[in-house]
Amino acid sequence: MDEWMMHCSDKLHEECGVFGIFGHPQAAQLTYYGLYALQHRGQESAGIATVDGLTMHSHRAMGLVTEVFAGNRLESLKGTASVGHVRYSTAGASNVANAQPLVFSFRQGNLAMAHNGNLVNARQLQNHLESQGSIFQTTSDTEVVAHLIARGAFPTIAENVRVSLSMLKGGFALVILTDDQLIALRDPQGLRPLALARMGDAYVVASETCAFDTIGAEFVRDVEPGEMIIIDKAGLHSERYASSAKKALCTFEYIYFARPDSDIDGFNVHMVRKQLGRVLARQTPVEADVVIGVPDSSISAAIGFAEELAIPYEIGLIKNKYSGRTFIQPSQDLRSLGVRLKLNAVRKIVAGKRVVMVDDSLVRGTTSARLVSLLREAGATEVHVRITSPPVKHSCYYGIDTSAREELIAARKTVEEIQEFIGADSLAYLDEEGMLSVFGVEDVTHHGFCNACFTGKYPTDVYPSRSLER
Amino acid sequence: MDEWMMHCSDKLHEECGVFGIFGHPQAAQLTYYGLYALQHRGQESAGIATVDGLTMHSHRAMGLVTEVFAGNRLESLKGTASVGHVRYSTAGASNVANAQPLVFSFRQGNLAMAHNGNLVNARQLQNHLESQGSIFQTTSDTEVVAHLIARGAFPTIAENVRVSLSMLKGGFALVILTDDQLIALRDPQGLRPLALARMGDAYVVASETCAFDTIGAEFVRDVEPGEMIIIDKAGLHSERYASSAKKALCTFEYIYFARPDSDIDGFNVHMVRKQLGRVLARQTPVEADVVIGVPDSSISAAIGFAEELAIPYEIGLIKNKYSGRTFIQPSQDLRSLGVRLKLNAVRKIVAGKRVVMVDDSLVRGTTSARLVSLLREAGATEVHVRITSPPVKHSCYYGIDTSAREELIAARKTVEEIQEFIGADSLAYLDEEGMLSVFGVEDVTHHGFCNACFTGKYPTDVYPSRSLER
Amino acid sequence: MDEWMMHCSDKLHEECGVFGIFGHPQAAQLTYYGLYALQHRGQESAGIATVDGLTMHSHRAMGLVTEVFAGNRLESLKGTASVGHVRYSTAGASNVANAQPLVFSFRQGNLAMAHNGNLVNARQLQNHLESQGSIFQTTSDTEVVAHLIARGAFPTIAENVRVSLSMLKGGFALVILTDDQLIALRDPQGLRPLALARMGDAYVVASETCAFDTIGAEFVRDVEPGEMIIIDKAGLHSERYASSAKKALCTFEYIYFARPDSDIDGFNVHMVRKQLGRVLARQTPVEADVVIGVPDSSISAAIGFAEELAIPYEIGLIKNKYSGRTFIQPSQDLRSLGVRLKLNAVRKIVAGKRVVMVDDSLVRGTTSARLVSLLREAGATEVHVRITSPPVKHSCYYGIDTSAREELIAARKTVEEIQEFIGADSLAYLDEEGMLSVFGVEDVTHHGFCNACFTGKYPTDVYPSRSLER
Amino acid sequence: MDEWMMHCSDKLHEECGVFGIFGHPQAAQLTYYGLYALQHRGQESAGIATVDGLTMHSHRAMGLVTEVFAGNRLESLKGTASVGHVRYSTAGASNVANAQPLVFSFRQGNLAMAHNGNLVNARQLQNHLESQGSIFQTTSDTEVVAHLIARGAFPTIAENVRVSLSMLKGGFALVILTDDQLIALRDPQGLRPLALARMGDAYVVASETCAFDTIGAEFVRDVEPGEMIIIDKAGLHSERYASSAKKALCTFEYIYFARPDSDIDGFNVHMVRKQLGRVLARQTPVEADVVIGVPDSSISAAIGFAEELAIPYEIGLIKNKYSGRTFIQPSQDLRSLGVRLKLNAVRKIVAGKRVVMVDDSLVRGTTSARLVSLLREAGATEVHVRITSPPVKHSCYYGIDTSAREELIAARKTVEEIQEFIGADSLAYLDEEGMLSVFGVEDVTHHGFCNACFTGKYPTDVYPSRSLER
Repeated sequence: MDEWMMHCSDKLHEECGVFGIFGHPQAAQLTYYGLYALQHRGQESAGIATVDGLTMHSHRAMGLVTEVFAGNRLESLKGTASVGHVRYSTAGASNVANAQPLVFSFRQGNLAMAHNGNLVNARQLQNHLESQGSIFQTTSDTEVVAHLIARGAFPTIAENVRVSLSMLKGGFALVILTDDQLIALRDPQGLRPLALARMGDAYVVASETCAFDTIGAEFVRDVEPGEMIIIDKAGLHSERYASSAKKALCTFEYIYFARPDSDIDGFNVHMVRKQLGRVLARQTPVEADVVIGVPDSSISAAIGFAEELAIPYEIGLIKNKYSGRTFIQPSQDLRSLGVRLKLNAVRKIVAGKRVVMVDDSLVRGTTSARLVSLLREAGATEVHVRITSPPVKHSCYYGIDTSAREELIAARKTVEEIQEFIGADSLAYLDEEGMLSVFGVEDVTHHGFCNACFTGKYPTDVYPSRSLER
Repeated sequence: MDEWMMHCSDKLHEECGVFGIFGHPQAAQLTYYGLYALQHRGQESAGIATVDGLTMHSHRAMGLVTEVFAGNRLESLKGTASVGHVRYSTAGASNVANAQPLVFSFRQGNLAMAHNGNLVNARQLQNHLESQGSIFQTTSDTEVVAHLIARGAFPTIAENVRVSLSMLKGGFALVILTDDQLIALRDPQGLRPLALARMGDAYVVASETCAFDTIGAEFVRDVEPGEMIIIDKAGLHSERYASSAKKALCTFEYIYFARPDSDIDGFNVHMVRKQLGRVLARQTPVEADVVIGVPDSSISAAIGFAEELAIPYEIGLIKNKYSGRTFIQPSQDLRSLGVRLKLNAVRKIVAGKRVVMVDDSLVRGTTSARLVSLLREAGATEVHVRITSPPVKHSCYYGIDTSAREELIAARKTVEEIQEFIGADSLAYLDEEGMLSVFGVEDVTHHGFCNACFTGKYPTDVYPSRSLER
Repeated sequence: MDEWMMHCSDKLHEECGVFGIFGHPQAAQLTYYGLYALQHRGQESAGIATVDGLTMHSHRAMGLVTEVFAGNRLESLKGTASVGHVRYSTAGASNVANAQPLVFSFRQGNLAMAHNGNLVNARQLQNHLESQGSIFQTTSDTEVVAHLIARGAFPTIAENVRVSLSMLKGGFALVILTDDQLIALRDPQGLRPLALARMGDAYVVASETCAFDTIGAEFVRDVEPGEMIIIDKAGLHSERYASSAKKALCTFEYIYFARPDSDIDGFNVHMVRKQLGRVLARQTPVEADVVIGVPDSSISAAIGFAEELAIPYEIGLIKNKYSGRTFIQPSQDLRSLGVRLKLNAVRKIVAGKRVVMVDDSLVRGTTSARLVSLLREAGATEVHVRITSPPVKHSCYYGIDTSAREELIAARKTVEEIQEFIGADSLAYLDEEGMLSVFGVEDVTHHGFCNACFTGKYPTDVYPSRSLER
Repeated sequence: MDEWMMHCSDKLHEECGVFGIFGHPQAAQLTYYGLYALQHRGQESAGIATVDGLTMHSHRAMGLVTEVFAGNRLESLKGTASVGHVRYSTAGASNVANAQPLVFSFRQGNLAMAHNGNLVNARQLQNHLESQGSIFQTTSDTEVVAHLIARGAFPTIAENVRVSLSMLKGGFALVILTDDQLIALRDPQGLRPLALARMGDAYVVASETCAFDTIGAEFVRDVEPGEMIIIDKAGLHSERYASSAKKALCTFEYIYFARPDSDIDGFNVHMVRKQLGRVLARQTPVEADVVIGVPDSSISAAIGFAEELAIPYEIGLIKNKYSGRTFIQPSQDLRSLGVRLKLNAVRKIVAGKRVVMVDDSLVRGTTSARLVSLLREAGATEVHVRITSPPVKHSCYYGIDTSAREELIAARKTVEEIQEFIGADSLAYLDEEGMLSVFGVEDVTHHGFCNACFTGKYPTDVYPSRSLER
């Protein structure tokens, strides 16, 4: 893997964003803007399905929302209810067949399904379904759910959805469009976020509230873990399909994935990040001249860190905002350019200074090493790295693309070894108690969050193989 | 529908071409060239699936073969066995989900399937499958076959394919790729063509023999109606999955669809066409100065017609060969340009002459009317139209896109009325006996061909609705 | 050069087609259809410029006419006068800067210029212009003409055009659009064709008459060698800018370049070709069972040849019509596929037969060799090659892309050696007298045609270097 | 103009970025990365020209750098010297003919030229050149310079460049590539920036120093106003082509255009912006709970403003980073979405707070009005707007795309009226003295900066019409 790809892969990655709307004459267009607001959750593919009385219309393709629906593609997506999806681009297997929403027909009509998350028992369920003669055209968990629903014994789709859900284990936020209903639900632990809003007479659901603000919808509440919401002409109906499990919202949604202007389960993302920076500053103070953040996701935390220690916050690293998928990698001769192509140190800010570089997470460590080196070349006399989350030591099975465990630097090295690896004058992580204190949680073992990537304590059973790819 | 589209739609249309190869290190590339040779059978979408030990690779998209596999797309299709497909572009529902081969996995492994034809009982089978919980992601018949195979009770795929086939009614040529086999089969009546060839140690199957010539493979024989051929490392194995039905090969394959250099079931297409022209000339002679054909498909027949009557054959209509899907339709003000944009009369050939215009078929009549008018404007003193097939009066249910019956001009008008409609000085069709005489067949009621579109006598049961689209 | 490219390059190539219209509200759209009809004269790039009162609009790009103007590109080309251009794709230097029409502004207003042909003294004129301070942004002759016009001393553009023309030597058909005039002219020898038509009140000019038929314009007459036609609101005005030179129309326009439905200088292309075949048959008869032509350009000649000798004409070679620029070349392992990918022999036609293969010209000989081999593999017992033009031994300096002289097989080998090279049982060329007899010309030394590529006798001075590329 | 376009056009726009390198084996690739770093200066088109001994290679097209050079486009740009250009996208006339570098040949060889800025006497020079017979293929000033150079009387290009420059008036930074030299120069007032760096033995020039950091080149110094630098195999040679004028660097480079990590003429852009915020805070303090900046360009200034008044700085507005040129505008029914689609207020930050919104400039006022409204909807109790530059009242003639003067709100309204128009509780601008104090300049009338857009006092003659478009 070259320098550049190392940088890109040195973060955890969200796998999807979902959006749904019911009861608005501009359903497809609003879904387009909603997905545009959720684009940070996935840039591989985008898709929208709408329903117009009896007919279901859909379009999905590889690319950004603005690319997939360029031209007059939206015009054919008629109807007053819609579901949309954006999907994260993994390095290798870009595949239009895996683009969502998954659209199919079965004996009870048409169905489109958008899914954020990962089922830990998908492989087992698929084996069971195949033994009964099911075929699989994709490698996504979503198709497993589709088969379960289609095999349901009940006369309504909603009932069959409910029963199917009781078989699923893992993290999932699902938005399902039928010929006359929009169904939204969240896994029993609430691992993945999902929120509800109103827009006039219409209802809207989305992975993050920033989508509501973008289209001018009014936030109502978060969908509850284990809750299934059914929206149709009769209005909104809510029920619980799962008995109350311990809530376990993914902390990384706050740390890195979500947009700072989103509120998730009552907390604003930017404010959480800033507070993480403050707590970290209290835990691991350092004498320094300037505090900088790694753009874009660590800016909030850096501001908090700086405020707490009354050290000036500065813009010490500038990110190029015009990167794209067609970017040409440096040739062999120019590989040393590395991370410079995307990030640049502001020499006048850091030269001759003791610098604190705040970053939200540290996965493989390679980018941090480049950034420390970049700051030193720009004249920093000391570089202290502060990470506003605990060391990532375990893989995620709930919809986050962690590297394989052996690539997680904290699974192999001590903090001191990592500090040496990245070449920092000091390195400190936020600890779990500090992280949870931001949410007002004191008991680490019985809190409302999933910290499995830090602790290895998974809130559900985890099965040997999560992969559906043969 | 405007002038231009009328012209395009004034022919029957084939729905697909299929190709398969087993045992060649360049499987994907040869499939590419094979599909390129079969491109006339479908221009909407193209796709190839290959198998490389355990892994199946596939790519399919809207567009011509050369467009779909532009760049280095072929390189990722590794393996020594391959199946490919080209699909016809209907006016409206271009949809990548319907592109083939259909690729799926089930309990017995991976399977890719390419299908030419149409099942008349697809809707009934789908209803049955849905009642058992199947979901459908496409609107193609092929997915019905996939579900049937997956639900089979036998331990091998080949056995489950055989049983599934016994449930199918209609016209189909299927090429199926599994993890270690290539299966090729043809419907019990042989409605759709399929042929077998060798290329060194490799076996090849294709809808038409022109694909063999293009890749330098050696024709072995046609696949028999009701035959299933299984090719694997052990070699080629053939069996009959259906008891011998009356053979009923589609005559339109000769009249219009196939490439002139192909041989189907023992007859060369070009030579059949030329002979059709000769017979028609004997049946409906005419005093004229020159015989011309409508390019490209009627040239062979026109030559035969001219030879029989010893009237000079001439190139009286020239076709523009640079048309493409992005062609801009004439605006309202220029609609009168009509068919001129694609065909032009050679004034020096037809001016002052009595012209026989030979065409292979006449479906809606609108293009013929334009051409007669074009020839008169170019100075023809008389225009006699000769059609080298009988009047098309009935819809096809076996994989041909006939217009709805009410749009078939021969279903509504007498020959005299049609002559008046198209403005010809005389109009004559080849009759069924004459058509069949070309193949050495005398008994019209018990021949080896399907002439249902002329006679309304279908060689299989026909069910009320053939459409899978809800 | 690989097999495939050898085939493509084994013909001479025209370099351009031009079109102009004045006085029609749909000027751009008609130019689009006109260029579409002229597409065979050049597939590299296409462009249109229109004038709308004071403003000139233009668009040009690499690609076919239908590609360059896909979407709503035509809509911005407003105005009632227009000039268009298609350009031939040479193997290497595809370059949008060289796409035409060349559009520029100068002290007398805006000017768009479309040019078919080649100036033999372009390099000298460019040197002269550069010595006076001119800059050149393209490598096309057209820019030389632009500079000459701009430096003219007269108060009207038309006068400056006339004076500039008197400096040009070579072959050219020029269509020039100014803010209020359309100027069309042809070189003094009439080396390149240009014709005039009317369409209601509008005037149209085009390289070939097939463009008139396509848009429904009425042919008026050919533009005369040395004639300049000026069309404006006052109507059409004609004058001679050059004293009468000996006319020298390029014979290859008839032999290969032009569309069969076009008439050039009074002769129909198809009929000339057919007659060339007849004369050749008389000159070099052969005992054979069947006559075939190499598609598409040699079909007319093959029919004439067959008629003359009363041997059956047959369709023995079929061309794939779906080739495109993105066609993937065979890999090293499959190079033997060669010409098969584009042309296929009809086995049932040629097997066991003595075959005459008629071709219009033979430049490098490589494709002919492949075709002879292809026919033998398909079972032909004898293959006799007949070329309906004399041996090409000399380069063209008037706008045709002949290979370098050392690549012209007839410049290096005798007919017997060529016959051996291509593996034919016999090979014969049409001689010059025979070729000219088709046009009713008897005196070879004083005829109205340019045969320089056969004879080396150029109708103008030829300068050492014709290339503008440094 | 709709809501969305109003937002986009509510800033001044830079027109170009230039880059050059001499003496590096990876010249094209480094130019690509350099242009990538300068992409913020222009997103309409990009181009690179290289020279490889005698041959000049170039490619330019519409689009971002990463789009224009996607695939293997860079590979053909061989050579060790290169010049590159990015151009700003104005709303209407996107035109590949205007893309740079302008490449041409003339009697002294090949020349490629990249130009940032605007000549105020371009129209006069063009008139003069046209009267001598020059033709113009573009509407860019650059072509005027090309003609002047080509008409020069001296034996070397460098001498002709020098003489040509003495005729130019206005703002320009030019990088010129010849067959063996790289020439870089800056206008006599230094209106547009240009800097010099080294990279091993190679020399590099660029509009901004961020390009040097990106490729790892070492900053040497700014090019001086009126200086011409000639780089060839003999090394670097500098001379003054203009007597020392009063320096007049564009202040808007600091206020808005340049990247924060660039240093221009000795000042770091981010630090200048922060200081502008501080000075403004001292001049126009306000009681408030939180200070926010409009992303991205006003963040630095907002931090400075907040620090000075010891009010917390917060991230109150979040910008969507995935916008693209294909973004679909809201339909009529959804126009009220307006600025929301691109910017979102963080409700938890601003609700119930007195907010100071810092922006770098205010041109038409429409976006500011939307943002004030957005903040109020998100619960802000007071919104105070602070602009870190003086009111823009005059058009720029030196390469900045100011709106027409009648669209500049400050040219028509008083500050009180503007405050009312945008709906703010208070509005204050930085005054000129305050702005200049940041640079240590006291005497406003005799400083080293161009403030003409604020003051109307232009540092050069200004001619009636600057437009080259007829």
